[in-house]
Amino acid sequence: MTEQEIKFKEKIKAIQDTMYVIGGKWKIVIILSIYNGNKRFNDIVASIPKITNRVLSKELKHLEENLLISRKVIDEYPVRIEYTLTEYCLSIDELAGPMEKWGKNHMKKISGK
Amino acid sequence: MTEQEIKFKEKIKAIQDTMYVIGGKWKIVIILSIYNGNKRFNDIVASIPKITNRVLSKELKHLEENLLISRKVIDEYPVRIEYTLTEYCLSIDELAGPMEKWGKNHMKKISGK
Repeated sequence: MTEQEIKFKEKIKAIQDTMYVIGGKWKIVIILSIYNGNKRFNDIVASIPKITNRVLSKELKHLEENLLISRKVIDEYPVRIEYTLTEYCLSIDELAGPMEKWGKNHMKKISGK
Repeated sequence: MTEQEIKFKEKIKAIQDTMYVIGGKWKIVIILSIYNGNKRFNDIVASIPKITNRVLSKELKHLEENLLISRKVIDEYPVRIEYTLTEYCLSIDELAGPMEKWGKNHMKKISGK
């Protein structure tokens, strides 16, 4: 493989890794919801149109495994669980900002066809 | 709904629109392959590890519908079909660059656990 091909494959791998971690319809939106102050499961569900409990549970687990959120069990009666963003998660803004801008622009582009 | 909630819902919508258009494992990678000079179906397939013909066909159609690539039929014998990026598609670099950087960093973060 040429130097250029190796670089290209590395670029593909890095972008696919990013898509694996934050891709799909819900992950960044869940992060934004927690960033917006929604710490508890039901608050997060209520803040995101059309998300289901099953999907949110699965995505929260995925985000936790990828060190983007942390889950705290508060030993009260009843037990409370709170989700917060990790320090590391704030790096997502490098992506969320451009994505928001691009999405808004794309809708104008497509509707202006 | 408060002003803040409206803004939040708009942000969610814009990011979900972006994910719909360029999300998933293959779309940006296909764009990069065409950007790298692969114009014909078989060249694109060969350049992207593990992609299948069926998936590439579906994703090319999606990218064309979203004005990111154009498809030219060259009336020779046999007929040739070439894919090129639209001018508009270059705006993707606002996303591909940060995604590449974030992905590389994330792999170090996860492996350095």
